[in-house]
Amino acid sequence: EDNTARKADHLRIALGDHAGFVGLTTGFEQLRVRARALPERDLDEVDLSTELWGHHLTWPLLISCMTGGTTEAGPVNRALAVAAQRHGVAVGLGSGRVLLEDHARDEGFMVREAAPDVPILANLGAAQLAEYGPDACEWLVSRCAADALVIHLNPLQEAVQPGGDTGFSGLTARIDGLARELSVPVVVKEVGFGLAPEDIELLAGSGVAGIDVAGAGGTNWARIEGQREDEAGAVAAAFTDWGWPTTESVRVAHEILGPRRLRTVYLIASGGVRDGVDALKALCLGADLVGVARGLLSAAVEGPEAADRAVGVIARQLQVAAWAAGAGRVDDLESHLLR
Amino acid sequence: EDNTARKADHLRIALGDHAGFVGLTTGFEQLRVRARALPERDLDEVDLSTELWGHHLTWPLLISCMTGGTTEAGPVNRALAVAAQRHGVAVGLGSGRVLLEDHARDEGFMVREAAPDVPILANLGAAQLAEYGPDACEWLVSRCAADALVIHLNPLQEAVQPGGDTGFSGLTARIDGLARELSVPVVVKEVGFGLAPEDIELLAGSGVAGIDVAGAGGTNWARIEGQREDEAGAVAAAFTDWGWPTTESVRVAHEILGPRRLRTVYLIASGGVRDGVDALKALCLGADLVGVARGLLSAAVEGPEAADRAVGVIARQLQVAAWAAGAGRVDDLESHLLR
Amino acid sequence: EDNTARKADHLRIALGDHAGFVGLTTGFEQLRVRARALPERDLDEVDLSTELWGHHLTWPLLISCMTGGTTEAGPVNRALAVAAQRHGVAVGLGSGRVLLEDHARDEGFMVREAAPDVPILANLGAAQLAEYGPDACEWLVSRCAADALVIHLNPLQEAVQPGGDTGFSGLTARIDGLARELSVPVVVKEVGFGLAPEDIELLAGSGVAGIDVAGAGGTNWARIEGQREDEAGAVAAAFTDWGWPTTESVRVAHEILGPRRLRTVYLIASGGVRDGVDALKALCLGADLVGVARGLLSAAVEGPEAADRAVGVIARQLQVAAWAAGAGRVDDLESHLLR
Amino acid sequence: EDNTARKADHLRIALGDHAGFVGLTTGFEQLRVRARALPERDLDEVDLSTELWGHHLTWPLLISCMTGGTTEAGPVNRALAVAAQRHGVAVGLGSGRVLLEDHARDEGFMVREAAPDVPILANLGAAQLAEYGPDACEWLVSRCAADALVIHLNPLQEAVQPGGDTGFSGLTARIDGLARELSVPVVVKEVGFGLAPEDIELLAGSGVAGIDVAGAGGTNWARIEGQREDEAGAVAAAFTDWGWPTTESVRVAHEILGPRRLRTVYLIASGGVRDGVDALKALCLGADLVGVARGLLSAAVEGPEAADRAVGVIARQLQVAAWAAGAGRVDDLESHLLR
Ligand SMILES: Cc1cc2nc3c(=O)[nH]c(=O)nc-3n(C[C@H](O)[C@H](O)[C@H](O)COP(=O)(O)O)c2cc1C
Ligand SMILES: Cc1cc2nc3c(=O)[nH]c(=O)nc-3n(C[C@H](O)[C@H](O)[C@H](O)COP(=O)(O)O)c2cc1C
Ligand SMILES: Cc1cc2nc3c(=O)[nH]c(=O)nc-3n(C[C@H](O)[C@H](O)[C@H](O)COP(=O)(O)O)c2cc1C
Ligand SMILES: Cc1cc2nc3c(=O)[nH]c(=O)nc-3n(C[C@H](O)[C@H](O)[C@H](O)COP(=O)(O)O)c2cc1C
Repeated sequence: EDNTARKADHLRIALGDHAGFVGLTTGFEQLRVRARALPERDLDEVDLSTELWGHHLTWPLLISCMTGGTTEAGPVNRALAVAAQRHGVAVGLGSGRVLLEDHARDEGFMVREAAPDVPILANLGAAQLAEYGPDACEWLVSRCAADALVIHLNPLQEAVQPGGDTGFSGLTARIDGLARELSVPVVVKEVGFGLAPEDIELLAGSGVAGIDVAGAGGTNWARIEGQREDEAGAVAAAFTDWGWPTTESVRVAHEILGPRRLRTVYLIASGGVRDGVDALKALCLGADLVGVARGLLSAAVEGPEAADRAVGVIARQLQVAAWAAGAGRVDDLESHLLR
Repeated sequence: EDNTARKADHLRIALGDHAGFVGLTTGFEQLRVRARALPERDLDEVDLSTELWGHHLTWPLLISCMTGGTTEAGPVNRALAVAAQRHGVAVGLGSGRVLLEDHARDEGFMVREAAPDVPILANLGAAQLAEYGPDACEWLVSRCAADALVIHLNPLQEAVQPGGDTGFSGLTARIDGLARELSVPVVVKEVGFGLAPEDIELLAGSGVAGIDVAGAGGTNWARIEGQREDEAGAVAAAFTDWGWPTTESVRVAHEILGPRRLRTVYLIASGGVRDGVDALKALCLGADLVGVARGLLSAAVEGPEAADRAVGVIARQLQVAAWAAGAGRVDDLESHLLR
Repeated sequence: EDNTARKADHLRIALGDHAGFVGLTTGFEQLRVRARALPERDLDEVDLSTELWGHHLTWPLLISCMTGGTTEAGPVNRALAVAAQRHGVAVGLGSGRVLLEDHARDEGFMVREAAPDVPILANLGAAQLAEYGPDACEWLVSRCAADALVIHLNPLQEAVQPGGDTGFSGLTARIDGLARELSVPVVVKEVGFGLAPEDIELLAGSGVAGIDVAGAGGTNWARIEGQREDEAGAVAAAFTDWGWPTTESVRVAHEILGPRRLRTVYLIASGGVRDGVDALKALCLGADLVGVARGLLSAAVEGPEAADRAVGVIARQLQVAAWAAGAGRVDDLESHLLR
Repeated sequence: EDNTARKADHLRIALGDHAGFVGLTTGFEQLRVRARALPERDLDEVDLSTELWGHHLTWPLLISCMTGGTTEAGPVNRALAVAAQRHGVAVGLGSGRVLLEDHARDEGFMVREAAPDVPILANLGAAQLAEYGPDACEWLVSRCAADALVIHLNPLQEAVQPGGDTGFSGLTARIDGLARELSVPVVVKEVGFGLAPEDIELLAGSGVAGIDVAGAGGTNWARIEGQREDEAGAVAAAFTDWGWPTTESVRVAHEILGPRRLRTVYLIASGGVRDGVDALKALCLGADLVGVARGLLSAAVEGPEAADRAVGVIARQLQVAAWAAGAGRVDDLESHLLR
């Protein structure tokens, strides 16, 4: 099967109406912010800037890994990079497998020019680590001028797609080894079904620098793969409500990783984050950074201006929500702001 | 931006279908009245009259602050004033900012003639207190022949609208100062997102004479402002379920302010009150007075007869509900009538 | 206003689509029967016959009071009487007020011939007891050849209708006096908003022979009256979810009146009973008899055959449900059959 | 009434839109699997094969008893048998009553040739045991070359249908006797309303080799019979939410029968199982085998290839779900995998 055709399909299907969960939500909708009528602070005093491995971020936001290696990926990732740069947030690239397989397929992977000052995160599937060791990963990171490498765990996506790579034995050890050898931080994430407490324990005990829960309630990769092939679709139908709701996974990760100030492993919350209020809730649950993928995709396809506006709206919502919750800094965002 | 055009927009949008909350309700629908089949009293013996700062009210009801300073405001406020006078309830005016800015723009602010015997409440945004001190407020109150001044807290509304006034530092002190200097009672309210326990504590400790929770579940001012401008609309989309449900805010305020007979700060319940049964529930939760805004707007636009009928229906529902709950006086309305 | 026109309106509106509750249910739908796959008994061994003041009933069912004194009432009540006779269940007549006011208006009140062997219950509003004392009631009962008199409490219905009789003071004493003087048993009921615990306590301490909770979730009399007049409709809109769900009222009445075998006051469950499974649940909650009104109305309007079939279906459902719950007699129907 | 016409009706109605429950679900939708992102095993290492009375099954799945004795039954059961054989799962036949009544009506009962290596289960209604004793049952089993006999308990179905066999007294004793005399294992099941704890206790204490809860939430046999006749339909309307949700019945059975390794009575979970994730949940609740009936019917009507695909999809979903839950063998499937 042609991997770039697959990537193009993903973009198309993800933009459609059947890429989400049915019968399961992120849980953000059940959390309420303790809204204040008397914030006793001016809105423009609210400053949510933060640090990510030595890089300054204006907002604790990440544009999650989406695409690369297909014709459409070029303009999409450039638009996202431009938006990231303008708003001072981190940006991820899609899986670098295509690029590792064919060094010429670099569409969408070369965005450093468009985003000179913000962290760029390269990406690879964990199952690919059997084939591509630390050296190949190092090459990938340097080719993308990336500041970190994100490894994704996607057992269900692989199992549902015909010919998917379902060799998942020994992955923890491989991830551990990679994290210890690579010159840049390694982040491990799911792709939208969340991490189990047991997964988080395993990863927290390895050398990874960050964990992104990529929880359930947003993009459902079983359903997306299911729209590419009949039998995959039939199998996927059972998994529309599979996984850990994002809020549940973040809560557990927060408990395992400990308080923000003390932790050594960075906690990224993502999966179904729709807006800056969801982002605020995720931060209050203990996340260091909040990622958004599909929610930015249609704007990114439209172009850099639309992407800029879309990221700007989320940042503004986050700022307003923090203000109206009585908070002024990232450190103020704790669970007592929720009810 | 023209402030009177804004006010006209507000009326139009508030009358439309997208001015409410999505995913959050007042909580009234979850409370049930302990209905009696044997009230052991005649309906016409039920007398819910009360006092408001020395004024007699036939019903513990308030027509909440809505409009003023725009052409439409004249007939709308006259209709509401006529209805208030006929039924013996209090009536509020919209924000006097326009009038303070331009003393000629008095449309809708001069209703004392139409409502000679009931309390009239003037209104101003808390953020305006930076510009307009106690003297200006005194002028406003006297110009409107008002019996009290209502200060509204609307951080979200200001934050969502382009160029909104988001200078909210030091507001508690300003309100406090105003309350101590003004010749009439000062009431502080939200505009439909409710007051947090912390807000209520702050206000209860200041010199204000009354607190109106103006809770969530009724009119959503982020959504209204969002319909006036594209980016505001995008930002507002995250706030359709923001705030404290009215019943929650009233409960908390009741706890903080203490039992009705002992309290020195008047408790007004408003925000999404649809009818006299909601009003009864709010009174049973501990309110002294119940306010209705948007629920009376279309009748007010229709004219004085329609406004009269609309207020009459709420008063009648309240009387019937109190009767059929076995209550005869405002003092009988306590939480044991609910379940 | 013409009382018989009102009665005709009631039938018409009750047959329409807006005669029920909105936002409140009987609670039957939340109870589950402990269904048995091995009832260890033949279906035709199930015998749910019972006694009602010395009369034998084949099923513990009552066709609740509905109509009388209007042209349509004649065939409707005859159909219901025929059905009651064929299935051996009790049948109630509508309010006898019209007949007391004009002795010639006896349409629908003379059904003894059609139902020679089953209990017939006459009916009158409690508020009418101010005008019609025990002698008039005695006359009514004897004119209808009735076996009991049902007094209904309908404060909300009276309050909503223009010119309704809302003189409800002193009713408990009047009911008490009537119950002690009348030659036949007196039953007291609501009309679809249920009885409060306090109401039941009051009635249990008076001389009445039976209590019919007529709980909420079935027919909503505020809504029906609201369809006869504009202002009534506006007032009624606040009462679509008023009252005590039938199951809640029955549970409480059962607690107050004590176990079936020991009690001296008969407990009738009604209000939104849709079928024989609801009836079974009501019996398991402690009722002695289960009443159905509106659920039989359209069949009664169709004629005796349809009414016969409709009552037969409920009886059959009750028998099947009792059997499949492992019960054989009315005495077996207790709360441990529910979960 | 012609029993084969009835059987043909059943197939037709079961394929339609009104054969399910309304207001009651299996409960599977409320259980969540503890999904793992790091299963630390390859998907193809997952082996869920099991034993059923000495027969090897590739998957712990059963195609539940559906049809026989009607023209349509031939191809349907052949298709199911082919699918069972290909996937190594057990297959049940519909009630053998028709065959016992007329030895020539063997359509659909002779599928051994199509399924030489998997267990085939013959079937008979418990009420028929009054007429057909152990010898007749022995004949039925041997005529179908079956490995077991399934006795179904269907009180509601019998009660709803005109002329249904509702003689259910003494059934436990008859089942007990049969189980002790028959040369093959006897399984007892409901047909979609579930078994009560009391039923399970009775059966666990008899000599049966297996219990299939056939719980509520899937196929509703009252509704199916109700579509064959008017009065049956009226009676059936009360039973759309009757019975024990499958998950509830399985939980209770698991508690009564004890841990999988120690139990002597086989536990089959069925009733509304839609896919392999439901199957996984049922196994985690303690089932030894999971049955699917109606969910496979339309594929079976389409033919052997469709049936093969349909069973294959469920098996694949089960395998993927087990893998992504971190399990490798049937023995790993325990309640701690659920939350
Ligand atoms: C079109 C698309 C492509 C994606 N590709 C990748 C990928 O290559 N690598 C990866 O780790 N995650 C990928 N993801 C998953 C996202 O990073 C994210 O974890 C997931 O979509 C959940 O977030 P969301 O609900 O905000 O979309 C992709 C998501 C989308 C929508
Ligand atoms: C058209 C309109 C204009 C309003 N203008 C004001 C205002 O000028 N000042 C104020 O304090 N509140 C204002 N409000 C808010 C109301 O007083 C009230 O707090 C809010 O609408 C919640 O009540 P409701 O749900 O009954 O509408 C306005 C409301 C409406 C609908
Ligand atoms: C058309 C109609 C007329 C009724 N008239 C009377 C009446 O005259 N007296 C009375 O006590 N109840 C009357 N009822 C109330 C019923 O007896 C019963 O209490 C109520 O309808 C709730 O039961 P349901 O939900 O089964 O209809 C009437 C009900 C209906 C539908
Ligand atoms: C068309 C059809 C015919 C059935 N016939 C029988 C039968 O003859 N004997 C039996 O024990 N169960 C029979 N059943 C019931 C099933 O075995 C099963 O217990 C029930 O349908 C619940 O499972 P489901 O929800 O997966 O359909 C039949 C089911 C269907 C759909």
